Amino acid sequence: MIDVCLLGTGGMMPLEDRWLASVLIRCNGRMILIDCGEGTQIPLKLCGWGFKAIDVILFTHYHADHVAGLPGLLLAIGNSGREEPLTLIGPPGIKEVVEGLTVISPDLPYALSLFELPDNKICEVSLNDINLINNINNVNNLAIRSLVLRSAPVDHRIPCLSYSLELKRQGKFYAERARMLNIPVKFWKKLQKGETITLDGRVIYPEMVLGEARKGIKISYCTDTRPTESIIDFIKDSDLFICEGMYGDNENFEKAVQKKHMTFKEAAELARKGNVKELWLTHYSPSLKNPEEYIEAVKAIFANVHAGKDLYKKTITYS
Amino acid sequence: MIDVCLLGTGGMMPLEDRWLASVLIRCNGRMILIDCGEGTQIPLKLCGWGFKAIDVILFTHYHADHVAGLPGLLLAIGNSGREEPLTLIGPPGIKEVVEGLTVISPDLPYALSLFELPDNKICEVSLNDINLINNINNVNNLAIRSLVLRSAPVDHRIPCLSYSLELKRQGKFYAERARMLNIPVKFWKKLQKGETITLDGRVIYPEMVLGEARKGIKISYCTDTRPTESIIDFIKDSDLFICEGMYGDNENFEKAVQKKHMTFKEAAELARKGNVKELWLTHYSPSLKNPEEYIEAVKAIFANVHAGKDLYKKTITYS
Repeated sequence: MIDVCLLGTGGMMPLEDRWLASVLIRCNGRMILIDCGEGTQIPLKLCGWGFKAIDVILFTHYHADHVAGLPGLLLAIGNSGREEPLTLIGPPGIKEVVEGLTVISPDLPYALSLFELPDNKICEVSLNDINLINNINNVNNLAIRSLVLRSAPVDHRIPCLSYSLELKRQGKFYAERARMLNIPVKFWKKLQKGETITLDGRVIYPEMVLGEARKGIKISYCTDTRPTESIIDFIKDSDLFICEGMYGDNENFEKAVQKKHMTFKEAAELARKGNVKELWLTHYSPSLKNPEEYIEAVKAIFANVHAGKDLYKKTITYS
Repeated sequence: MIDVCLLGTGGMMPLEDRWLASVLIRCNGRMILIDCGEGTQIPLKLCGWGFKAIDVILFTHYHADHVAGLPGLLLAIGNSGREEPLTLIGPPGIKEVVEGLTVISPDLPYALSLFELPDNKICEVSLNDINLINNINNVNNLAIRSLVLRSAPVDHRIPCLSYSLELKRQGKFYAERARMLNIPVKFWKKLQKGETITLDGRVIYPEMVLGEARKGIKISYCTDTRPTESIIDFIKDSDLFICEGMYGDNENFEKAVQKKHMTFKEAAELARKGNVKELWLTHYSPSLKNPEEYIEAVKAIFANVHAGKDLYKKTITYS
């Protein structure tokens, strides 16, 4: 099960009634934040999931509307009582950006652990690996560590990454196989979790009692970019695809091309070709006052599309 | 005439319904901003005075709630079409802070000019001098340049400055003296402005046609600090004194001492002793939901006190 909260849906600048594009993902009580523009700590507080359990912050890129809220958020996380390291992940340049911004939040009660992803190729990494690489021994974030993070370069004015997070799902557990192998019930949970056990000298692999891996939960997040062929592959079969829709009106197509953004129509086409289940639009231009009015027109391209709203929440379970 | 707009009245963190403490001062169409916490660009837009004519940003100190909004604001000012240099003034450390934060706003269409004020003594400087020192030749900001800026160190957890801005007022112009000196009417305006003219080889000083300097307009701004004796002198006879009131309830006195802030009562005592005309409270603790309810109690100390509200505006004219 994964909970998703769209904290903000704005592009370029925070508005009185629209926070900057950012999404919070929660899995077994632990959280990942994607992007953190100026003011993101406000909807984060309104969301009600707290600050302390944010284990990872992902950055798509380092334009101010995606990262300027970092020092304030880091202080808010500090005030929440967090002492465990926090992992910050983004495209090349993360060290310079974080060092620059934290000049005004110098004495945090926890360590920052930076992880740079390449901007020239798709990358897959389990958050567990990142924890290990960064020497983080954080027992609380096992849930987050079981997620697989993928990043892919997109087509913006500066290096920018799309992200997907996938919660893998073990195959079905066959109790009868466990009984046939004389495995006591108290060991079943470990095997169900995918762990190998040793029993009276015998090594029992989880594959011996589990069926084939089942479809997990996949969420993908894609802003700021032009639509590209590689995005279609990257978002393939997502349960939820959160994508920028800078412009509702197709009349802004030229502007979208020039500024390296998308129209609603282009986002819907990606969703259709990527065979996703659901599309939420976000990262609206400040000039786009009422995104809802353009939604009907794109339903012809992709039916299950929603104009994202600040603090829009959804729980996604295994299908 | 000076217009003042209290952009935000919050301390520590931006809230859904309260922006961080910041004040905008406008004089003849040009503006000075004091402090710029996360989100300040939002009330700045709501204020309606535009971004382009902000010539100076003053920082009291570099805690995030007073400075984190800088990169977003600099970009917004850039988007407004500004090309003239912008002057940033604050206590020691401004170079490191601005260099750090602007790592995410690297390509501004105007230059930044930094000016550091000492944190160990009172300092008086005309903004004209600062413009000259920084080699800014900006014909548009004459109005701002006629203001006198004073700064004074206060008592906070890190170096912090109070500011006052004073619009000086020339003495009365005596037309009869000008006529007696045979000065043609077309030169009167220059003399009224305090400029010296040369007329057929004669040097005419403004003092020859002006009476004694009259009381101008003085605005003082004081946050984050404990009350100190030196503040009383510093704010003396202000037309408007904007002062932090972190806590409304006197029960928070110990907390105020510990965190180096003030209660409403302490701010009101400063206002009374400083003989100011009007006091606006600001920089409320997030826990202070309704500042208004504590105002009646402090009116016994200083009658003309107001619980500042976001976007509170006032025009102050010569008295």
